[in-house]
Amino acid sequence: MYRYPAETICAPATVPGGAISVIRVSGPQAIAATEKIFRIVGRLSLTDRKTGTLAFGTIIDEDGAVLDEVLVSLFRAPHSYTGEDSTEISCHGSRYIAERILELLCREGCRMAEAGEFTKRAFLNGKMDLCQAEAVADLIAAESAASHRMAINQMRGGFTRELELLREKLLHLTALLELELDFSDHEDLEFANRTELSVLTAEAEQRIAELTASFHLGNAIKEGIPVAIIGETNAGKSTLLNALLNEERAIVSDIHGTTRDVIEDIVNIGGTLFRFIDTAGLRETDDAIERLGIDRTFKKIEQAEIVLLLVDVTSSPNHTEDFLRNILPRCSGKRLITVYNKLDLCPNFTPIPSSGSAVLISAKDKQGLDRLRDLLTTTIPQQNAQNNVIVANRRHYEALNQALDAIKRVNQGLVFNLPVDLVSQDLRECICHLAEIIHGGISPENILHKIFSTFCIGK
Amino acid sequence: MYRYPAETICAPATVPGGAISVIRVSGPQAIAATEKIFRIVGRLSLTDRKTGTLAFGTIIDEDGAVLDEVLVSLFRAPHSYTGEDSTEISCHGSRYIAERILELLCREGCRMAEAGEFTKRAFLNGKMDLCQAEAVADLIAAESAASHRMAINQMRGGFTRELELLREKLLHLTALLELELDFSDHEDLEFANRTELSVLTAEAEQRIAELTASFHLGNAIKEGIPVAIIGETNAGKSTLLNALLNEERAIVSDIHGTTRDVIEDIVNIGGTLFRFIDTAGLRETDDAIERLGIDRTFKKIEQAEIVLLLVDVTSSPNHTEDFLRNILPRCSGKRLITVYNKLDLCPNFTPIPSSGSAVLISAKDKQGLDRLRDLLTTTIPQQNAQNNVIVANRRHYEALNQALDAIKRVNQGLVFNLPVDLVSQDLRECICHLAEIIHGGISPENILHKIFSTFCIGK
Repeated sequence: MYRYPAETICAPATVPGGAISVIRVSGPQAIAATEKIFRIVGRLSLTDRKTGTLAFGTIIDEDGAVLDEVLVSLFRAPHSYTGEDSTEISCHGSRYIAERILELLCREGCRMAEAGEFTKRAFLNGKMDLCQAEAVADLIAAESAASHRMAINQMRGGFTRELELLREKLLHLTALLELELDFSDHEDLEFANRTELSVLTAEAEQRIAELTASFHLGNAIKEGIPVAIIGETNAGKSTLLNALLNEERAIVSDIHGTTRDVIEDIVNIGGTLFRFIDTAGLRETDDAIERLGIDRTFKKIEQAEIVLLLVDVTSSPNHTEDFLRNILPRCSGKRLITVYNKLDLCPNFTPIPSSGSAVLISAKDKQGLDRLRDLLTTTIPQQNAQNNVIVANRRHYEALNQALDAIKRVNQGLVFNLPVDLVSQDLRECICHLAEIIHGGISPENILHKIFSTFCIGK
Repeated sequence: MYRYPAETICAPATVPGGAISVIRVSGPQAIAATEKIFRIVGRLSLTDRKTGTLAFGTIIDEDGAVLDEVLVSLFRAPHSYTGEDSTEISCHGSRYIAERILELLCREGCRMAEAGEFTKRAFLNGKMDLCQAEAVADLIAAESAASHRMAINQMRGGFTRELELLREKLLHLTALLELELDFSDHEDLEFANRTELSVLTAEAEQRIAELTASFHLGNAIKEGIPVAIIGETNAGKSTLLNALLNEERAIVSDIHGTTRDVIEDIVNIGGTLFRFIDTAGLRETDDAIERLGIDRTFKKIEQAEIVLLLVDVTSSPNHTEDFLRNILPRCSGKRLITVYNKLDLCPNFTPIPSSGSAVLISAKDKQGLDRLRDLLTTTIPQQNAQNNVIVANRRHYEALNQALDAIKRVNQGLVFNLPVDLVSQDLRECICHLAEIIHGGISPENILHKIFSTFCIGK
């Protein structure tokens, strides 16, 4: 097991501005250093106390003056987040006090932790694997139920279990290949194995392909699922967007009276972030500049996961049919929702049958918006925290892509009856790329630095 | 003892953005409500655990899904901040998770705490007196060593002890007065007591006057001690201000790489905030508008605690003497530091003897600034955390002012030989105003609401 250099690190685990601040200390001298600046209330000293206990007392500065009254949480290795001896000092939430406590700890031989260093130590000490550690950062950043569910599933080992399962299958494949190598003079044995091998390889390829493909959704869940709103000029695109934004904004800031930074076009609907892309109105035109705007709209359709096709119900049926005939081919491969708007002006409208789902609304009167929201949330593939693993991390995606290439070569090798040792090498490469996700691969230090430097301080 | 209504409250004790978030729960159902949403890792349930222990486990949402892995700190009444049963849930620092945990707690019968409600309960449950509770808010807001020292001293009971001492003296006075009432037919006894009474009353009046006067400094320490920089046009006021600001700004953001909101003219020198007031340059003028600017400068001198009188050493000695003769009377009652600037242009300059301290500098070359800083910090009355109580709270100041008026009336009453029962009433009023500081006076609910509504949520 990796032995981490015996430095003791400290950092604020909270940002200034709250009622309390928490300072984290971890490393072989964590308890001793804390003890030096801490005057405990009670008989037992920190050193004599058990792991998982809280001690009340005061922090004493270099001049012997009381800096603050604090609570110290005590964790002994390996029963801590990092796997090392650790303390957490919970002080009053003043920036001054937190900075002074860190200063005092640094006087006692601690040093300020780098970003993500606590979690890095947790990984290096075997408390979690690399993709669990990465999930910690995702978990902290998660702003919606959907992105939270992905992160907590990954942190709790969901993705790891999936990868272990794959690894087992691939190891079984390796065993079969090696069996073939051993019995390479027996032609009959070879053919039996090749069939089983092909089936197993195809299965593995399919699973790796599924995981790779899930990155598209995973990334969309993290960043907001892109939804293009398209329609003719005056179909009511802005009214619809405002109706969705305004209503949801009120929901976002309900219970706690907190205000959050308003991101204009991202809306949390049913726990999933949707990123609405407003587009230029479409209409038949010979004007070169207007054509440019329309081309841009078609580009935005390509970037979208979902297309809301807005139709003005007051238009003539022939006109609408023409419009749909022109636009629908542009939306192929996208999840399409046809939204018939301005129902307030034409309450008896009957929609024209078309592909995809359809909904009748009045954006102006906010009618039918609930149905539209239901359609949006059911249109995206449902995540299932228990079973469905969704890849949301680009590093994992890239490793999976390489694993997919390798397993494809394995499959091809079996089809074209390539020598077993060549096939076996591709198989090893595939296993190696999957292991990279969990363990960081062959040059872990560079990768670790890259991963953990994106963390916040104190984690 | 005051029995608080049996509601259980919860609130975030940290602001989003850090590695962890802490949720506070307090009240009779705190442990039961936490237990309902918490699946502990380990054998003992939360209810069976001791006070002052930490439990690791997961928060489970209404659908049985894992929301987060958390640590729960357990405190049983009266061994908690509020004096009630309490828990602190330390979760990952995502706004989403913190909001969901609060939502789950509210489902289990908790309600969101009002601003300052935890500290209010601590006060109502006798864990601290009112001026200690108020110091908690000051402590959190303290940005400098000096304001921190005032707040921690007050929170640790320094001011309370001072007030108790005064109260004892005043109670002794009351006893003496009552003795006089009892023996009112014995003329000889009366006179002996009057002398002792006068001495004691004078002492008490002096101490109350000192405390009242300290508010001036206390408030300055909290808001920054006002320093007016005055001098003739081109004496180098802006250069000096910039030199002080720039150097200190670098010190402010040293250790932790944090950036703080830059307040243009407040500088932390040796742990004390100084609020520098730049003024219009002074010169002899008949111009009406320029006169206005100069009048404004004199007004600013009045608001200042310290005046930095900037003198250009390249000016002729006669001119400088004239200038000083004109300006010095305007600075009477202020702590004055004469700053001879532009030493770089005239290295052999010998200063003209004047009242107050003097320092030779070159603002341009940043020479002599350390000496100037030393003068600034030694010019202000030194706080002594052990002995000197400094009043920094306006409510205390107002109560002290009323106590001072009352004790003055007592003194006058003794001088003019007023009837004992009148004097005794004033004495009671004085004691009452002092008690108000500690206990909130006769209509505590209004006062308490006013005090605690200025707190942050979660404290």
